[in-house]
Amino acid sequence: MLKVGINGYGTIGKRVADAVAAQPDMDVCGVSKASPDFGADGAVRRGYALYSAREDRLSAFRDAGYDVAGTSEDLIEESDVVVDATPGGIGAENRPRYEAAGTPAIFQGKEADDLVETSFNARANFEAAEGAEYVRVVSCNTTGISRLVAPLEEAYGVEKVRATLVRRGGDPDQTGRGPINDILPDPITVPSHHGPDVNTIFPDLSIDTMGLTVPTTLMHMHSLNIELESEPTSAEVRELLAEESRIFVVEDDLAIDGTGKLRELARDRGRPRGDLWENCVWGESINVQDSELYLFQAIHQESDVIPENVDAIRAMTGLADGDESMQTTDEALGIGLPDPRRAAVTSPAP
Amino acid sequence: MLKVGINGYGTIGKRVADAVAAQPDMDVCGVSKASPDFGADGAVRRGYALYSAREDRLSAFRDAGYDVAGTSEDLIEESDVVVDATPGGIGAENRPRYEAAGTPAIFQGKEADDLVETSFNARANFEAAEGAEYVRVVSCNTTGISRLVAPLEEAYGVEKVRATLVRRGGDPDQTGRGPINDILPDPITVPSHHGPDVNTIFPDLSIDTMGLTVPTTLMHMHSLNIELESEPTSAEVRELLAEESRIFVVEDDLAIDGTGKLRELARDRGRPRGDLWENCVWGESINVQDSELYLFQAIHQESDVIPENVDAIRAMTGLADGDESMQTTDEALGIGLPDPRRAAVTSPAP
Repeated sequence: MLKVGINGYGTIGKRVADAVAAQPDMDVCGVSKASPDFGADGAVRRGYALYSAREDRLSAFRDAGYDVAGTSEDLIEESDVVVDATPGGIGAENRPRYEAAGTPAIFQGKEADDLVETSFNARANFEAAEGAEYVRVVSCNTTGISRLVAPLEEAYGVEKVRATLVRRGGDPDQTGRGPINDILPDPITVPSHHGPDVNTIFPDLSIDTMGLTVPTTLMHMHSLNIELESEPTSAEVRELLAEESRIFVVEDDLAIDGTGKLRELARDRGRPRGDLWENCVWGESINVQDSELYLFQAIHQESDVIPENVDAIRAMTGLADGDESMQTTDEALGIGLPDPRRAAVTSPAP
Repeated sequence: MLKVGINGYGTIGKRVADAVAAQPDMDVCGVSKASPDFGADGAVRRGYALYSAREDRLSAFRDAGYDVAGTSEDLIEESDVVVDATPGGIGAENRPRYEAAGTPAIFQGKEADDLVETSFNARANFEAAEGAEYVRVVSCNTTGISRLVAPLEEAYGVEKVRATLVRRGGDPDQTGRGPINDILPDPITVPSHHGPDVNTIFPDLSIDTMGLTVPTTLMHMHSLNIELESEPTSAEVRELLAEESRIFVVEDDLAIDGTGKLRELARDRGRPRGDLWENCVWGESINVQDSELYLFQAIHQESDVIPENVDAIRAMTGLADGDESMQTTDEALGIGLPDPRRAAVTSPAP
């Protein structure tokens, strides 16, 4: 069993830990946290060995009653691979520590592309990470766009992507963020940095993105216009996307009108934390006119990159090829909502 | 002085009344309301003659202590022109009443285009309403797009418009509306009905729109992609738009990051009700690449159609031609924020 260490146990780290624990070929050998807040309690209850991110915080954990296994240095030594889920920018500071220990590491989307050998999306470029020591799983929005572009590019060719990303202001636990009752062009300049980030996965793709931020916490929403090189029907595109395990095509008769009902469906399905790992594309919105495809998709910012982190581990360590890894990940997590009315309820351990 | 009656004294009606009262060539001869709520108090305080929308509500107004001049039938008889600002669909029911009295009438954007001789935007098709008896001022979103498309079409030619309209869930006084903490594709089907509505002003324009609704009340936000027939620079487009009196190009150094600060600027300027009659286009967002123009604009849903209603009155009655009418309206209201740091504070008479 591959030993995976999780450095940083926040929104992404705690989810990656649970996803790794659910896999048949890897184990969580420990998680490292910066402070003994309520997240530490969650880690201990799940049976993960707890490490302190810093030497000088060890006493804070012990004072709070936690049995700490060591510092993150110890965790890095202990691990076959580390998933770095620390806040943006800290990953870059950590890379020399992974190098010193000879431990391969996966970074998250807020780190720069040039920190790693390759940026990664399982559906689009699994092979690029095979054997790599330092890999970056792209952001939630880039993951969502990459999953959509990959099958469209293969089936029809993509001439140009134009996307408006209507982003949630913060996650449910980010109480310090806004806006309240506002719509912000964010960034005001056009195109936004999101397009170039997609180019770390598809270097030759022509893509322009515009970002907005609104007062919600549940999911991002993408309003997409994609010029194709050929002219499929709307029904053909819908079928193509429905075959993708990490795209959930929302059927009309489910009466799902927005991100709230999507998350409620995930909660009803018993999904851990009510997570939605799949892109959620409204079937009714898929429309092709003169080779231009329009659609709406919602992206769960807290969880869509989780299966990608698991697949990146397998790509780097050679545990499986792309198809096999994605299938194993999907089965272990219960990914795939082809028809939520008939599918069984599945959740990862624990 | 032209006698203008206002039938329906809600969000639009009360603003049209004040705008008419501020003009040098027309007077408010009365306003008609459905019920004696706090809006009736506002009408009386402004000195408008108050009419009851229905005969059977006269006693309700009188019981509430209001001196009512009659019913809306009386107001229609009394008026040279009526601005119908009743809720969507009621305008169509009212048209036979205007016909019976021989009174020309202006309807709002929620009525159907085929109810009238022409749909109307002062900047784009003033002439179409000259001498007409029944005219429809298009919706706030269509007004916003029309003001933008008209100068671009004249200067460069427009090949295609693609717009994502991120709409506010309700106005500040619409307490029964949502969503809370959600982003709704609205409508889910693409393209939305907004594009065809713009075609009531520009019949030959190629335009696809996508609608979303978010939990805000202040303004709509448009994320726009416009393919031009020629290739101006970003700076040229910025200058072109800055010359339009009803487009406010938001300068970078004002540090206006969203709709909240825009409305705060309007409040600081002493604008009545904090209204923003102009399209608000972020200058920094204006970007032309390969003949494709991108920009963000915010639209104040409660007020951008107000000057258009005033101009429609002049077009129908022959009081002025388009340029003269728009100039008179703009001066009377204090429209135009070319440089809010230097412009004088102006507000219309209450």
